[in-house]
Amino acid sequence: MEELAVTVDTSTPAGSVALNRGEDLLGEVVLHLRGTHTDRILSSLNWLLTEACVKPSEVDVFGVVIGPGSFTGLRVGVATVKGLAFACDTPVVGVSSLETLAMGRPASAYPVCTMIDARKHEVYGAVYDCRQEVPINQVQEQVVPPRVMLEQLQGEHLFVGSGAVLYRDLILERMGDKAHFVPRAVNLPRASSAAALVLARYRVGKTCTAREIAPRYIRASEAEIMRAAKQASKTT
Amino acid sequence: MEELAVTVDTSTPAGSVALNRGEDLLGEVVLHLRGTHTDRILSSLNWLLTEACVKPSEVDVFGVVIGPGSFTGLRVGVATVKGLAFACDTPVVGVSSLETLAMGRPASAYPVCTMIDARKHEVYGAVYDCRQEVPINQVQEQVVPPRVMLEQLQGEHLFVGSGAVLYRDLILERMGDKAHFVPRAVNLPRASSAAALVLARYRVGKTCTAREIAPRYIRASEAEIMRAAKQASKTT
Repeated sequence: MEELAVTVDTSTPAGSVALNRGEDLLGEVVLHLRGTHTDRILSSLNWLLTEACVKPSEVDVFGVVIGPGSFTGLRVGVATVKGLAFACDTPVVGVSSLETLAMGRPASAYPVCTMIDARKHEVYGAVYDCRQEVPINQVQEQVVPPRVMLEQLQGEHLFVGSGAVLYRDLILERMGDKAHFVPRAVNLPRASSAAALVLARYRVGKTCTAREIAPRYIRASEAEIMRAAKQASKTT
Repeated sequence: MEELAVTVDTSTPAGSVALNRGEDLLGEVVLHLRGTHTDRILSSLNWLLTEACVKPSEVDVFGVVIGPGSFTGLRVGVATVKGLAFACDTPVVGVSSLETLAMGRPASAYPVCTMIDARKHEVYGAVYDCRQEVPINQVQEQVVPPRVMLEQLQGEHLFVGSGAVLYRDLILERMGDKAHFVPRAVNLPRASSAAALVLARYRVGKTCTAREIAPRYIRASEAEIMRAAKQASKTT
């Protein structure tokens, strides 16, 4: 029997949970509603596992999107998976939110520019070649103003993610007809896409423990920035 | 406020329900488990609407995938939407299962050959140009042996749907490196993709009533074939 995987994505306001038997998706719940992930992600997971008659202890690997993205969202997702994996003594695989978005667009005609809104007029961005089944990174993950992201692109690109929706006008202004978009209804990140990356890593032993897994923010959090600023002002 | 749409897809063993506010997906549940859709689709819908605090009477349009696909699946999906739309006096939009699969692959590098397993060594198939946001039909819907579907194709194609999984070896044998596939984890049809088609039709008034909506099987059902055979044997 192939491995049973549970994957959680809370990197953006659209939270999702996927249950896989190997590469086959058994179920997925996506919720993109107002409010926080805190209650919702566990109730989604509980509902999905109940429908599928699966106990957390039967799961072979827990996957989680570790960022970049919403600080609070990532902490909730990682903490939830940490708790589950610790209780069940199950390995964990963390994957990138931007690679997850790219994974959802296999066989794309254009390089895929993934953009997640990072607030403060910035995006988390990266570019992937998605012509094959697995995305190949072309421009590495960064947090920059969308203008700076666009300056690194040449030729036609497919723009996906919340940053592509938010900065659509700017993208069109700069890229003209070289910019392509997917319909908003199919533009959300998906735990099922993350699951494909999770399984690939699990199968080559690239797992970590519940204790080790941690969010990857790329940008320092507001609290860290303020602490650094305070320390800098003290030393000067 | 944009329209609220509920869309149901039970055309294959992977059933799904989507809730949209305009083009924005508020939530989606996909279940690809053993057993029938009969209980599952209403419990998925009930859970999703409860999480989103939406009453069926608030929904502006019900969408349903009318086929081609599993006869029983389609009947369950259409009957469920019929009941909801009749009770709430809400318009209905029916969309194609094959077009739904194509809608999930915008900006594809290759024409998208959608294939759904039709049993009896046949597939429901069609081909779409998916380079733009909305799929453009290139080879019309048909129920044929997969070999006959493949004979109509020239050049590279992206194969999606349950038929592409089932007949992968045959496709590779006939098409070689001109055949491209998406990872199985992201290969399922999605009510959220159907929702994009539903909304486009709702906005130009292409709706029908709860009484009018009906499955579109393409192939005659087993019962119909047997009845026709009986009548033919009587007349000869």
